[in-house]
Amino acid sequence: MQDTHLHHEEHLQSSDLLTDIVIGMSDGLTVPFALAAGLSGAVDSTAVIILAGIAEIAAGSIAMGLGGFLAGKTEQDHYNSELKREYWEVDHLPEKEREEVREFFESLGLSREVQDKATDELVKDKDRWVEFMMKHELGLDKPDPKRARKSAFNIGLSYVVGGLVPLSPYFFVNDSVEALKISVVITLICLFIFGFFKSKITGVNQWTGGLKVMMIGAAAAGAAFGIAKLIEGM
Amino acid sequence: MQDTHLHHEEHLQSSDLLTDIVIGMSDGLTVPFALAAGLSGAVDSTAVIILAGIAEIAAGSIAMGLGGFLAGKTEQDHYNSELKREYWEVDHLPEKEREEVREFFESLGLSREVQDKATDELVKDKDRWVEFMMKHELGLDKPDPKRARKSAFNIGLSYVVGGLVPLSPYFFVNDSVEALKISVVITLICLFIFGFFKSKITGVNQWTGGLKVMMIGAAAAGAAFGIAKLIEGM
Repeated sequence: MQDTHLHHEEHLQSSDLLTDIVIGMSDGLTVPFALAAGLSGAVDSTAVIILAGIAEIAAGSIAMGLGGFLAGKTEQDHYNSELKREYWEVDHLPEKEREEVREFFESLGLSREVQDKATDELVKDKDRWVEFMMKHELGLDKPDPKRARKSAFNIGLSYVVGGLVPLSPYFFVNDSVEALKISVVITLICLFIFGFFKSKITGVNQWTGGLKVMMIGAAAAGAAFGIAKLIEGM
Repeated sequence: MQDTHLHHEEHLQSSDLLTDIVIGMSDGLTVPFALAAGLSGAVDSTAVIILAGIAEIAAGSIAMGLGGFLAGKTEQDHYNSELKREYWEVDHLPEKEREEVREFFESLGLSREVQDKATDELVKDKDRWVEFMMKHELGLDKPDPKRARKSAFNIGLSYVVGGLVPLSPYFFVNDSVEALKISVVITLICLFIFGFFKSKITGVNQWTGGLKVMMIGAAAAGAAFGIAKLIEGM
Protein backbone atom coordinates (compact mmCIF):
# COMPACT_ATOMS: atom_id res chain seq x y z
CA MET A 1 0.00 0.00 0.00
CA GLN A 2 2.60 2.50 1.17
CA ASP A 3 4.80 1.19 -1.57
CA THR A 4 2.22 1.71 -4.30
CA HIS A 5 1.56 5.25 -3.16
CA LEU A 6 5.23 6.09 -3.08
CA HIS A 7 5.59 4.56 -6.49
CA HIS A 8 2.84 6.74 -7.94
CA GLU A 9 4.00 9.91 -6.31
CA GLU A 10 7.52 9.43 -7.58
CA HIS A 11 6.10 8.67 -10.97
CA LEU A 12 4.20 11.96 -10.98
CA GLN A 13 7.01 14.11 -9.62
CA SER A 14 9.66 12.82 -11.97
CA SER A 15 7.30 13.02 -14.92
CA ASP A 16 7.23 16.84 -14.95
CA LEU A 17 10.98 17.22 -15.37
CA LEU A 18 11.19 14.19 -17.62
CA THR A 19 8.36 15.40 -19.81
CA ASP A 20 10.29 18.64 -20.29
CA ILE A 21 13.55 16.86 -21.12
CA VAL A 22 11.73 14.49 -23.46
CA ILE A 23 9.99 17.37 -25.23
CA GLY A 24 13.15 19.42 -25.56
CA MET A 25 15.66 16.73 -26.33
CA SER A 26 13.65 14.65 -28.76
CA ASP A 27 13.13 17.70 -30.96
CA GLY A 28 16.63 19.00 -30.30
CA LEU A 29 18.25 15.77 -31.43
CA THR A 30 15.95 15.28 -34.39
CA VAL A 31 15.34 18.64 -36.08
CA PRO A 32 18.88 20.10 -36.21
CA PHE A 33 20.07 16.61 -37.21
CA ALA A 34 17.63 16.47 -40.12
CA LEU A 35 18.36 20.06 -41.11
CA ALA A 36 22.12 19.40 -41.20
CA ALA A 37 21.51 16.17 -43.14
CA GLY A 38 19.30 17.99 -45.63
CA LEU A 39 21.83 20.75 -46.18
CA SER A 40 24.70 18.25 -46.46
CA GLY A 41 22.90 16.78 -49.47
CA ALA A 42 22.84 20.13 -51.25
CA VAL A 43 25.58 22.40 -49.86
CA ASP A 44 29.32 21.70 -49.79
CA SER A 45 30.29 24.35 -47.23
CA THR A 46 30.16 23.16 -43.63
CA ALA A 47 30.22 26.86 -42.61
CA VAL A 48 26.69 27.33 -44.01
CA ILE A 49 25.51 24.14 -42.30
CA ILE A 50 26.96 25.24 -38.94
CA LEU A 51 25.38 28.67 -39.37
CA ALA A 52 21.98 27.22 -40.22
CA GLY A 53 22.30 24.62 -37.45
CA ILE A 54 23.15 27.15 -34.75
CA ALA A 55 20.43 29.53 -35.95
CA GLU A 56 18.00 26.62 -35.77
CA ILE A 57 19.13 25.63 -32.26
CA ALA A 58 18.76 29.24 -31.06
CA ALA A 59 15.36 29.55 -32.70
CA GLY A 60 14.13 26.15 -31.58
CA SER A 61 15.27 26.42 -27.97
CA ILE A 62 13.76 29.89 -27.54
CA ALA A 63 10.53 28.95 -29.30
CA MET A 64 10.15 25.75 -27.28
CA GLY A 65 11.38 27.22 -24.00
CA LEU A 66 9.16 30.29 -24.20
CA GLY A 67 6.42 28.07 -25.59
CA GLY A 68 6.71 25.88 -22.49
CA PHE A 69 6.67 28.97 -20.27
CA LEU A 70 3.57 30.32 -21.99
CA ALA A 71 1.84 26.94 -21.78
CA GLY A 72 2.51 26.82 -18.03
CA LYS A 73 1.26 30.37 -17.53
CA THR A 74 -1.83 29.67 -19.61
CA GLU A 75 -2.57 26.58 -17.54
CA GLN A 76 -2.41 28.70 -14.39
CA ASP A 77 -4.62 31.44 -15.81
CA HIS A 78 -7.08 28.85 -17.02
CA TYR A 79 -7.15 27.21 -13.59
CA ASN A 80 -7.71 30.52 -11.83
CA SER A 81 -10.50 31.63 -14.15
CA GLU A 82 -12.29 28.28 -13.77
CA LEU A 83 -11.81 28.43 -9.98
CA LYS A 84 -13.48 31.83 -9.84
CA ARG A 85 -16.33 30.50 -11.95
CA GLU A 86 -16.84 27.45 -9.73
CA TYR A 87 -16.98 29.63 -6.58
CA TRP A 88 -19.52 31.83 -8.34
CA GLU A 89 -21.60 28.80 -9.34
CA VAL A 90 -21.49 27.29 -5.84
CA ASP A 91 -22.69 30.63 -4.43
CA HIS A 92 -25.33 31.40 -7.03
CA LEU A 93 -26.48 28.02 -8.37
CA PRO A 94 -25.94 25.69 -5.38
CA GLU A 95 -28.72 23.27 -6.40
CA LYS A 96 -27.23 22.76 -9.85
CA GLU A 97 -23.75 22.20 -8.42
CA ARG A 98 -25.11 19.85 -5.76
CA GLU A 99 -26.79 17.85 -8.51
CA GLU A 100 -23.47 17.59 -10.34
CA VAL A 101 -21.81 16.19 -7.22
CA ARG A 102 -24.62 13.63 -6.90
CA GLU A 103 -24.24 12.67 -10.57
CA PHE A 104 -20.52 12.04 -9.99
CA PHE A 105 -21.37 9.51 -7.26
CA GLU A 106 -24.10 8.07 -9.51
CA SER A 107 -21.49 7.54 -12.24
CA LEU A 108 -19.51 5.41 -9.78
CA GLY A 109 -22.52 3.08 -9.54
CA LEU A 110 -23.48 3.96 -5.96
CA SER A 111 -27.06 3.56 -4.70
CA ARG A 112 -29.28 6.64 -4.55
CA GLU A 113 -29.16 6.55 -0.74
CA VAL A 114 -25.33 6.66 -0.62
CA GLN A 115 -25.23 9.24 -3.43
CA ASP A 116 -27.39 11.60 -1.36
CA LYS A 117 -25.52 11.03 1.90
CA ALA A 118 -22.11 11.53 0.30
CA THR A 119 -23.33 14.67 -1.47
CA ASP A 120 -24.74 16.11 1.78
CA GLU A 121 -21.42 15.56 3.53
CA LEU A 122 -19.25 16.83 0.70
CA VAL A 123 -21.06 20.15 0.17
CA LYS A 124 -20.76 21.11 3.87
CA ASP A 125 -17.31 22.62 3.29
CA LYS A 126 -17.41 25.13 0.43
CA ASP A 127 -13.67 25.07 -0.34
CA ARG A 128 -13.63 21.31 -0.46
CA TRP A 129 -16.75 21.37 -2.64
CA VAL A 130 -15.11 23.73 -5.15
CA GLU A 131 -11.88 21.73 -5.11
CA PHE A 132 -13.92 18.61 -5.83
CA MET A 133 -15.69 20.29 -8.78
CA MET A 134 -12.36 21.50 -10.17
CA LYS A 135 -10.81 18.10 -10.01
CA HIS A 136 -13.64 15.70 -10.81
CA GLU A 137 -15.96 17.76 -12.98
CA LEU A 138 -13.34 19.71 -14.91
CA GLY A 139 -10.33 17.42 -14.46
CA LEU A 140 -8.09 20.31 -13.41
CA ASP A 141 -5.30 19.96 -10.85
CA LYS A 142 -3.86 23.00 -9.13
CA PRO A 143 -0.78 23.94 -11.17
CA ASP A 144 2.55 24.63 -9.48
CA PRO A 145 3.29 28.38 -9.85
CA LYS A 146 7.05 27.85 -10.17
CA ARG A 147 6.52 25.20 -12.77
CA ALA A 148 6.18 27.47 -15.84
CA ARG A 149 9.62 29.03 -15.35
CA LYS A 150 11.38 25.76 -14.57
CA SER A 151 9.67 24.11 -17.50
CA ALA A 152 10.83 26.82 -19.92
CA PHE A 153 14.41 26.47 -18.77
CA ASN A 154 14.41 22.66 -18.88
CA ILE A 155 12.90 22.44 -22.34
CA GLY A 156 15.15 25.13 -23.81
CA LEU A 157 18.33 23.67 -22.33
CA SER A 158 17.43 20.13 -23.40
CA TYR A 159 16.92 21.41 -26.93
CA VAL A 160 20.37 23.06 -27.01
CA VAL A 161 22.10 19.98 -25.59
CA GLY A 162 20.26 17.72 -28.03
CA GLY A 163 20.92 20.01 -30.99
CA LEU A 164 24.67 20.26 -30.47
CA VAL A 165 25.09 16.49 -30.82
CA PRO A 166 24.28 16.16 -34.55
CA LEU A 167 26.01 19.46 -35.33
CA SER A 168 29.31 18.71 -33.59
CA PRO A 169 31.03 16.77 -36.43
CA TYR A 170 30.62 19.77 -38.76
CA PHE A 171 32.93 21.77 -36.50
CA PHE A 172 35.78 19.32 -36.97
CA VAL A 173 35.32 17.86 -40.46
CA ASN A 174 35.49 20.14 -43.49
CA ASP A 175 33.76 17.90 -45.99
CA SER A 176 30.00 18.07 -45.44
CA VAL A 177 29.30 14.51 -46.59
CA GLU A 178 32.04 13.11 -44.31
CA ALA A 179 30.68 15.16 -41.41
CA LEU A 180 27.18 13.88 -42.17
CA LYS A 181 28.35 10.25 -41.89
CA ILE A 182 29.75 10.86 -38.39
CA SER A 183 26.69 12.90 -37.45
CA VAL A 184 24.35 10.06 -38.51
CA VAL A 185 26.24 7.52 -36.41
CA ILE A 186 26.48 9.53 -33.18
CA THR A 187 22.97 11.00 -33.45
CA LEU A 188 21.30 7.65 -34.09
CA ILE A 189 23.16 6.19 -31.09
CA CYS A 190 22.04 9.12 -28.92
CA LEU A 191 18.45 8.85 -30.18
CA PHE A 192 18.44 5.16 -29.30
CA ILE A 193 19.81 5.79 -25.79
CA PHE A 194 17.35 8.63 -25.33
CA GLY A 195 14.42 6.46 -26.51
CA PHE A 196 15.61 3.63 -24.28
CA PHE A 197 15.51 5.77 -21.13
CA LYS A 198 12.31 7.50 -22.15
CA SER A 199 10.63 4.08 -22.42
CA LYS A 200 11.87 3.11 -18.98
CA ILE A 201 9.79 5.94 -17.56
CA THR A 202 6.63 5.29 -19.56
CA GLY A 203 6.90 1.58 -18.81
CA VAL A 204 6.91 0.21 -22.37
CA ASN A 205 9.55 -2.12 -23.84
CA GLN A 206 12.85 -0.27 -23.81
CA TRP A 207 14.42 -1.85 -26.90
CA THR A 208 11.35 -1.22 -29.04
CA GLY A 209 11.09 2.30 -27.63
CA GLY A 210 14.72 3.05 -28.42
CA LEU A 211 14.36 1.71 -31.95
CA LYS A 212 11.21 3.77 -32.57
CA VAL A 213 12.79 7.06 -31.52
CA MET A 214 15.87 6.26 -33.62
CA MET A 215 13.70 5.52 -36.65
CA ILE A 216 11.83 8.81 -36.33
CA GLY A 217 15.13 10.67 -36.44
CA ALA A 218 16.34 8.61 -39.40
CA ALA A 219 13.07 9.19 -41.29
CA ALA A 220 13.18 12.95 -40.69
CA ALA A 221 16.84 13.20 -41.72
CA GLY A 222 16.30 10.99 -44.76
CA ALA A 223 13.31 13.04 -45.91
CA ALA A 224 15.14 16.32 -45.42
CA PHE A 225 18.18 14.98 -47.31
CA GLY A 226 16.00 13.74 -50.19
CA ILE A 227 13.94 16.91 -50.46
CA ALA A 228 17.03 19.14 -50.38
CA LYS A 229 18.65 16.99 -53.11
CA LEU A 230 15.51 17.32 -55.21
CA ILE A 231 15.33 21.11 -54.83
CA GLU A 232 19.02 21.45 -55.58
CA GLY A 233 18.57 19.36 -58.74
CA MET A 234 15.78 21.60 -60.05
CA MET B 1 -27.01 21.94 -16.12
CA GLN B 2 -27.36 20.41 -19.56
CA ASP B 3 -25.65 23.49 -20.89
CA THR B 4 -22.65 23.16 -18.60
CA HIS B 5 -22.20 19.53 -19.50
CA LEU B 6 -22.39 20.27 -23.19
CA HIS B 7 -19.93 23.07 -22.69
CA HIS B 8 -17.41 20.80 -21.01
CA GLU B 9 -17.82 17.96 -23.44
CA GLU B 10 -17.30 20.28 -26.38
CA HIS B 11 -14.35 21.71 -24.58
CA LEU B 12 -12.78 18.28 -24.21
CA GLN B 13 -13.49 17.05 -27.72
CA SER B 14 -12.24 20.15 -29.47
CA SER B 15 -9.17 20.29 -27.27
CA ASP B 16 -7.58 17.17 -28.80
CA LEU B 17 -7.59 18.53 -32.35
CA LEU B 18 -6.80 22.02 -31.17
CA THR B 19 -3.92 20.84 -29.01
CA ASP B 20 -2.47 19.18 -32.10
CA ILE B 21 -2.90 22.27 -34.26
CA VAL B 22 -1.48 24.47 -31.52
CA ILE B 23 1.55 22.18 -31.09
CA GLY B 24 2.22 21.90 -34.81
CA MET B 25 1.46 25.42 -35.89
CA SER B 26 3.13 27.33 -33.08
CA ASP B 27 6.41 25.57 -33.81
CA GLY B 28 5.82 25.64 -37.56
CA LEU B 29 5.31 29.39 -37.61
CA THR B 30 8.14 30.12 -35.20
CA VAL B 31 11.09 27.86 -36.01
CA PRO B 32 11.27 28.14 -39.83
CA PHE B 33 10.62 31.88 -39.37
CA ALA B 34 13.53 32.24 -36.99
CA LEU B 35 15.77 30.04 -39.12
CA ALA B 36 15.04 32.11 -42.24
CA ALA B 37 15.60 35.31 -40.25
CA GLY B 38 18.90 34.00 -38.91
CA LEU B 39 20.14 33.01 -42.35
CA SER B 40 18.97 36.31 -43.86
CA GLY B 41 21.35 38.07 -41.50
CA ALA B 42 24.31 36.06 -42.79
CA VAL B 43 23.58 34.73 -46.28
CA ASP B 44 22.68 36.77 -49.38
CA SER B 45 21.31 33.93 -51.48
CA THR B 46 17.58 33.31 -51.00
CA ALA B 47 18.14 29.90 -52.67
CA VAL B 48 20.09 28.69 -49.62
CA ILE B 49 17.44 30.09 -47.29
CA ILE B 50 14.63 28.36 -49.20
CA LEU B 51 16.61 25.12 -49.20
CA ALA B 52 17.29 25.28 -45.47
CA GLY B 53 13.71 26.36 -44.77
CA ILE B 54 12.16 23.51 -46.72
CA ALA B 55 14.60 20.99 -45.23
CA GLU B 56 13.61 22.31 -41.80
CA ILE B 57 9.87 22.07 -42.55
CA ALA B 58 10.29 18.49 -43.81
CA ALA B 59 12.39 17.56 -40.77
CA GLY B 60 10.19 19.36 -38.27
CA SER B 61 6.87 18.07 -39.58
CA ILE B 62 8.09 14.48 -39.70
CA ALA B 63 9.76 14.68 -36.29
CA MET B 64 6.73 16.29 -34.68
CA GLY B 65 4.17 14.19 -36.56
CA LEU B 66 5.90 10.89 -35.84
CA GLY B 67 6.64 12.18 -32.35
CA GLY B 68 2.92 12.78 -31.85
CA PHE B 69 2.16 9.31 -33.19
CA LEU B 70 4.69 7.70 -30.87
CA ALA B 71 3.40 9.70 -27.89
CA GLY B 72 -0.14 8.50 -28.60
CA LYS B 73 0.98 4.89 -28.97
CA THR B 74 3.02 5.13 -25.77
CA GLU B 75 0.01 6.52 -23.92
CA GLN B 76 -2.02 3.52 -25.07
CA ASP B 77 0.66 1.00 -24.12
CA HIS B 78 1.05 2.67 -20.74
CA TYR B 79 -2.72 2.57 -20.16
CA ASN B 80 -2.94 -1.10 -21.12
CA SER B 81 -0.02 -2.14 -18.92
CA GLU B 82 -1.48 -0.27 -15.92
CA LEU B 83 -4.93 -1.75 -16.62
CA LYS B 84 -3.51 -5.26 -16.52
CA ARG B 85 -1.74 -4.43 -13.28
CA GLU B 86 -4.90 -3.05 -11.67
CA TYR B 87 -6.89 -6.20 -12.62
CA TRP B 88 -4.10 -8.27 -11.10
CA GLU B 89 -4.12 -6.19 -7.92
CA VAL B 90 -7.91 -6.37 -7.59
CA ASP B 91 -7.71 -10.16 -7.94
CA HIS B 92 -4.70 -10.76 -5.70
CA LEU B 93 -4.70 -7.89 -3.21
CA PRO B 94 -8.41 -7.03 -2.91
CA GLU B 95 -8.10 -5.75 0.69
CA LYS B 96 -5.36 -3.30 -0.27
CA GLU B 97 -7.33 -2.06 -3.30
CA ARG B 98 -10.53 -1.77 -1.22
CA GLU B 99 -8.60 0.34 1.28
CA GLU B 100 -7.46 2.63 -1.53
CA VAL B 101 -11.06 3.14 -2.63
CA ARG B 102 -12.04 3.98 0.96
CA GLU B 103 -9.13 6.44 1.20
CA PHE B 104 -10.37 8.19 -1.92
CA PHE B 105 -13.74 8.78 -0.25
CA GLU B 106 -11.94 9.81 2.94
CA SER B 107 -10.01 12.42 0.94
CA LEU B 108 -13.35 13.92 -0.11
CA GLY B 109 -14.11 14.53 3.59
CA LEU B 110 -16.90 11.96 3.90
CA SER B 111 -17.74 10.32 7.23
CA ARG B 112 -16.37 6.87 7.95
CA GLU B 113 -19.86 5.40 7.66
CA VAL B 114 -20.43 6.79 4.14
CA GLN B 115 -16.85 5.89 3.14
CA ASP B 116 -17.52 2.25 4.00
CA LYS B 117 -20.94 2.10 2.37
CA ALA B 118 -19.71 3.73 -0.82
CA THR B 119 -16.70 1.40 -0.93
CA ASP B 120 -18.90 -1.68 -0.44
CA GLU B 121 -21.12 -0.65 -3.32
CA LEU B 122 -18.33 0.35 -5.67
CA VAL B 123 -16.29 -2.86 -5.37
CA LYS B 124 -19.30 -5.05 -6.26
CA ASP B 125 -18.61 -4.67 -9.98
CA LYS B 126 -15.02 -5.58 -10.76
CA ASP B 127 -14.80 -3.75 -14.09
CA ARG B 128 -16.18 -0.61 -12.56
CA TRP B 129 -13.80 -0.97 -9.64
CA VAL B 130 -10.78 -1.23 -11.96
CA GLU B 131 -12.03 1.68 -14.08
CA PHE B 132 -12.36 3.71 -10.88
CA MET B 133 -8.78 2.87 -9.81
CA MET B 134 -7.44 3.76 -13.25
CA LYS B 135 -9.15 7.11 -13.26
CA HIS B 136 -9.03 8.25 -9.65
CA GLU B 137 -5.93 6.56 -8.29
CA LEU B 138 -3.73 6.81 -11.38
CA GLY B 139 -5.44 9.69 -13.17
CA LEU B 140 -5.52 7.77 -16.47
CA ASP B 141 -8.34 8.12 -18.99
CA LYS B 142 -8.88 5.46 -21.63
CA PRO B 143 -7.07 6.74 -24.74
CA ASP B 144 -8.79 6.76 -28.12
CA PRO B 145 -7.06 4.11 -30.31
CA LYS B 146 -7.49 6.16 -33.51
CA ARG B 147 -6.11 9.20 -31.79
CA ALA B 148 -2.38 8.49 -32.31
CA ARG B 149 -2.71 8.38 -36.09
CA LYS B 150 -4.97 11.42 -36.33
CA SER B 151 -2.72 13.31 -33.96
CA ALA B 152 0.38 12.58 -36.06
CA PHE B 153 -1.32 13.81 -39.21
CA ASN B 154 -2.74 16.96 -37.59
CA ILE B 155 0.54 17.99 -35.98
CA GLY B 156 2.60 17.32 -39.10
CA LEU B 157 0.22 19.15 -41.42
CA SER B 158 -0.09 22.12 -39.06
CA TYR B 159 3.69 22.37 -38.99
CA VAL B 160 3.93 22.44 -42.80
CA VAL B 161 1.16 25.04 -43.12
CA GLY B 162 2.72 27.17 -40.41
CA GLY B 163 6.21 26.83 -41.84
CA LEU B 164 5.31 27.90 -45.37
CA VAL B 165 4.05 31.28 -44.15
CA PRO B 166 7.42 32.79 -43.11
CA LEU B 167 9.19 31.15 -46.04
CA SER B 168 6.83 32.34 -48.78
CA PRO B 169 8.40 35.81 -49.39
CA TYR B 170 11.75 34.20 -50.19
CA PHE B 171 10.18 32.53 -53.23
CA PHE B 172 9.22 35.89 -54.74
CA VAL B 173 11.86 38.35 -53.57
CA ASN B 174 15.50 37.85 -54.56
CA ASP B 175 17.13 40.03 -51.92
CA SER B 176 17.23 38.13 -48.62
CA VAL B 177 16.94 41.24 -46.42
CA GLU B 178 13.94 42.52 -48.39
CA ALA B 179 12.32 39.08 -48.18
CA LEU B 180 12.99 39.04 -44.43
CA LYS B 181 11.13 42.33 -43.96
CA ILE B 182 8.01 40.94 -45.63
CA SER B 183 8.40 37.64 -43.77
CA VAL B 184 8.57 39.46 -40.42
CA VAL B 185 5.38 41.40 -41.12
CA ILE B 186 3.24 38.49 -42.33
CA THR B 187 4.56 36.01 -39.78
CA LEU B 188 4.04 38.33 -36.81
CA ILE B 189 0.49 39.01 -38.01
CA CYS B 190 -0.15 35.27 -38.34
CA LEU B 191 1.39 34.58 -34.91
CA PHE B 192 -0.88 37.21 -33.39
CA ILE B 193 -4.00 35.77 -35.05
CA PHE B 194 -2.93 32.28 -34.02
CA GLY B 195 -2.31 33.37 -30.40
CA PHE B 196 -5.63 35.22 -30.38
CA PHE B 197 -7.62 32.12 -31.34
CA LYS B 198 -5.55 29.85 -29.12
CA SER B 199 -6.42 32.08 -26.13
CA LYS B 200 -10.11 31.94 -27.02
CA ILE B 201 -9.99 28.19 -26.39
CA THR B 202 -8.00 28.29 -23.16
CA GLY B 203 -10.21 31.12 -21.87
CA VAL B 204 -7.52 33.72 -21.14
CA ASN B 205 -7.47 37.29 -22.48
CA GLN B 206 -7.20 37.09 -26.26
CA TRP B 207 -5.28 40.31 -26.89
CA THR B 208 -2.65 39.45 -24.28
CA GLY B 209 -2.50 35.88 -25.60
CA GLY B 210 -1.99 37.07 -29.18
CA LEU B 211 0.73 39.49 -28.12
CA LYS B 212 2.56 36.84 -26.11
CA VAL B 213 2.69 34.34 -28.98
CA MET B 214 3.84 37.11 -31.33
CA MET B 215 6.60 38.12 -28.94
CA ILE B 216 7.91 34.55 -28.65
CA GLY B 217 8.25 34.42 -32.42
CA ALA B 218 9.94 37.81 -32.52
CA ALA B 219 12.36 36.83 -29.74
CA ALA B 220 13.31 33.57 -31.45
CA ALA B 221 13.80 35.26 -34.82
CA GLY B 222 15.76 38.13 -33.27
CA ALA B 223 18.05 35.76 -31.38
CA ALA B 224 18.65 33.60 -34.45
CA PHE B 225 19.38 36.71 -36.55
CA GLY B 226 21.80 38.07 -33.94
CA ILE B 227 23.62 34.79 -33.40
CA ALA B 228 23.99 34.18 -37.15
CA LYS B 229 25.37 37.72 -37.61
CA LEU B 230 27.86 37.08 -34.78
CA ILE B 231 29.06 33.79 -36.26
CA GLU B 232 29.33 35.29 -39.72
CA GLY B 233 31.44 38.15 -38.27
CA MET B 234 33.90 35.75 -36.64
